[in-house]
Amino acid sequence: MAETEQAGDRLAALEARMCRLEDEVAIYRLLASYSPAVDSCDEDATTDLWAPDGGYDFGGTPLEGARNVGSLVHLDSHQEYVRKGCAHVMSLPLVSVDGDRAVATGYSRVYLYADDGWKVERVSANRWELVRAGDGWKVASRTNRLMDGSPAGRELLARGLHTDQEIPA
Amino acid sequence: MAETEQAGDRLAALEARMCRLEDEVAIYRLLASYSPAVDSCDEDATTDLWAPDGGYDFGGTPLEGARNVGSLVHLDSHQEYVRKGCAHVMSLPLVSVDGDRAVATGYSRVYLYADDGWKVERVSANRWELVRAGDGWKVASRTNRLMDGSPAGRELLARGLHTDQEIPA
Amino acid sequence: MAETEQAGDRLAALEARMCRLEDEVAIYRLLASYSPAVDSCDEDATTDLWAPDGGYDFGGTPLEGARNVGSLVHLDSHQEYVRKGCAHVMSLPLVSVDGDRAVATGYSRVYLYADDGWKVERVSANRWELVRAGDGWKVASRTNRLMDGSPAGRELLARGLHTDQEIPA
Repeated sequence: MAETEQAGDRLAALEARMCRLEDEVAIYRLLASYSPAVDSCDEDATTDLWAPDGGYDFGGTPLEGARNVGSLVHLDSHQEYVRKGCAHVMSLPLVSVDGDRAVATGYSRVYLYADDGWKVERVSANRWELVRAGDGWKVASRTNRLMDGSPAGRELLARGLHTDQEIPA
Repeated sequence: MAETEQAGDRLAALEARMCRLEDEVAIYRLLASYSPAVDSCDEDATTDLWAPDGGYDFGGTPLEGARNVGSLVHLDSHQEYVRKGCAHVMSLPLVSVDGDRAVATGYSRVYLYADDGWKVERVSANRWELVRAGDGWKVASRTNRLMDGSPAGRELLARGLHTDQEIPA
Repeated sequence: MAETEQAGDRLAALEARMCRLEDEVAIYRLLASYSPAVDSCDEDATTDLWAPDGGYDFGGTPLEGARNVGSLVHLDSHQEYVRKGCAHVMSLPLVSVDGDRAVATGYSRVYLYADDGWKVERVSANRWELVRAGDGWKVASRTNRLMDGSPAGRELLARGLHTDQEIPA
């Protein structure tokens, strides 16, 4: 009996560790889905990454609600990128999970095709606030700030580093 | 007895989840091996990533068979890149595993040294079809398409997003 | 009893596999922390990634000791990058773990803001030698070599590919 009880404790500990790792890899997968979704102009796939009331603040007027975020693939500016040839590429993010909420911090780059190779059109710091939903992790909010020497990008990165103290509730 | 049986079920569930995560991380590792292999002109290491009958369609005449893929490190075009200074860098891929087959979708970039910094020489969408072999995951086929505004790159990304419905058997 | 013993073996096997995966993801996390730390000029966060006697050989005079590594955020060259707008971005690394030591091999890029987009200022091969400490994985040494056509970068990548045979003791 004691052995069985001890085995039960070990199982429970393993299950908790498994959930923790699965969460982290699931969040990698979520971020790795974003780029193909927008670069192939897939409105539904983009929408589906966000929580219904989630938002995306990319530096201009923030998009509020998953459907508005998904509609970004039809923006003139996005269509112009796609017509020229673009790739939105995410870095390996720093992920902090706390129960049903998580934060991922990293960088995105937009590469844009020009006559002779690709131009690095945008380099941004990214903060993704994530929530666990019935069908997996969803984006509650994404915030981008250009790494152009202004303080906002650095501040966003600093928050990500010290995120354990302040995952939004 | 009931407890032992229940513990057995929990163990089996954990083992299945562990395999799933190990597969995903093993595929990250496979893709993270490709770049050092080709950038250090290591024919054997490159060959070893592919299944014996695997192929690589990089936009020109596809390379068929692991040995032909490995020999790409001797191509004049590759040697010229290496002489100038190049880095083939993969993005974090979106991985879908289905039993002994998997698909990874992401981006590759070739950075090429020029007099004053590095030029982004190529940005491609990548589709890696993978098979589980006796000694781990191997590449059954890799397909690259430039993100230069032509539809092929976008189509390849779209397939990756919707891969759960159609992992090749 | 036999069932319990067998369950104990399966638990132990799972625990070992879990540790292996957790190590790999923890090392991803360590590398994903570096970039926000230096790009936000966080000396303490940078220092904290290194083992107290760890070093960083970036091509110039190597920095020895975690405190010296952390102080790199105050270097004139770094401050000039930050003032202009920079992002240090790591690739998905190839990680080999052997007990309490590990090696991660990949690429770093420094993107630097210019008037019209970002310049790829540096592309380097990276070798991270890591040690398990009481509070997680720490950097024992990091070595960077520019991918500028000189052999040092290629040699560093080749070592990473064949690292299983020679993780430093």
